[in-house]
Amino acid sequence: MKDIPLPTKRRLVLLERLLSGYKEKNITSQKIQELTGWTSAVVRRDISALKLNCGATNGYKVEELKSHLEKMFGEKKESLRCCIVGLGRMGQALLDTSELYDSPFKIVAGFDSSVNKTEVLSSSFPLHPTTLMKKIIHEEEISYAILTVDSDEAQPLTDLLIDCGIKGIVNYTPCVLKVPIEVPIENVSLLTALETLAIN
Amino acid sequence: MKDIPLPTKRRLVLLERLLSGYKEKNITSQKIQELTGWTSAVVRRDISALKLNCGATNGYKVEELKSHLEKMFGEKKESLRCCIVGLGRMGQALLDTSELYDSPFKIVAGFDSSVNKTEVLSSSFPLHPTTLMKKIIHEEEISYAILTVDSDEAQPLTDLLIDCGIKGIVNYTPCVLKVPIEVPIENVSLLTALETLAIN
Repeated sequence: MKDIPLPTKRRLVLLERLLSGYKEKNITSQKIQELTGWTSAVVRRDISALKLNCGATNGYKVEELKSHLEKMFGEKKESLRCCIVGLGRMGQALLDTSELYDSPFKIVAGFDSSVNKTEVLSSSFPLHPTTLMKKIIHEEEISYAILTVDSDEAQPLTDLLIDCGIKGIVNYTPCVLKVPIEVPIENVSLLTALETLAIN
Repeated sequence: MKDIPLPTKRRLVLLERLLSGYKEKNITSQKIQELTGWTSAVVRRDISALKLNCGATNGYKVEELKSHLEKMFGEKKESLRCCIVGLGRMGQALLDTSELYDSPFKIVAGFDSSVNKTEVLSSSFPLHPTTLMKKIIHEEEISYAILTVDSDEAQPLTDLLIDCGIKGIVNYTPCVLKVPIEVPIENVSLLTALETLAIN
């Protein structure tokens, strides 16, 4: 998957989600353009990365396309365990993980440097002080971290997460995090998203 | 800016933020690699998109690089007015907009289909029922929308936002939104971010 460009990966992730609710037998790149706003040329190029054998003359066979997309993600789609680091307003909003229901991702732990918060807040998974991070991440076999701490804590806790062997970070802080090349980051802070929109 | 690839744009957005706190006179692509985890080759290619005149032998001049980055974003950096659509847990977490302080973005309105919420919640900007969206977006000259509604409301409200002439949407829902090609979307839902990480 390393050879597929990131924007293509992002669109294929969304395409899989789109098709999971699609009822027709075939779908054309033009139809996908209507449903998403990506141009049909972009759609055809993205799908060519999947190396399907069918042409696109009468559209793609939806079931075939789905199964290729599932296979593409499939190897990694056994239960992927995640933790939330930082239980401020954003972290608390993410404690309700209904969005991840029916996905391979499962949040199994939350961390905050304030013991007060970890004791008072309620969630469907255990909350711990950050001092226990290394132990819990190891024991719970956690692969991904969702970082929602204050800016001054972002880099120190990232360093700790890397040290714990975390495989990827969803960064809800506006900080530019320093990580090893092999650890992917998704920067999803509001500021980063708005700035990216504004230079489109 | 249309000719610069999206991943480069994203990194340049982060590079500008990184440099705003950088005290040295010069910076090398190697140093940027250390600070970010992007490879120095990627850094040099990204920066070449800015068409600087200086070489990178002894590193880039930080001030020059900053001013090129600012110019690049600058034209659009007069006050950019935003609204939040959906005041559930995520929307409420975003009501505290300290992250946008000192940025060109300003949230000037919030909307929710529940009048109860718009009346009870407190924020530094006015909250309105979604029935007033068209009127307020026009009057307040709002350019960008932050969408944090439930999945079943996502597409109908996106259609309404497009109809109001919105210029871009930050999508915190996991829905694949149907938009015209000229309206950019940043998909920052937790599920989308985790899925993108997992296929890296």
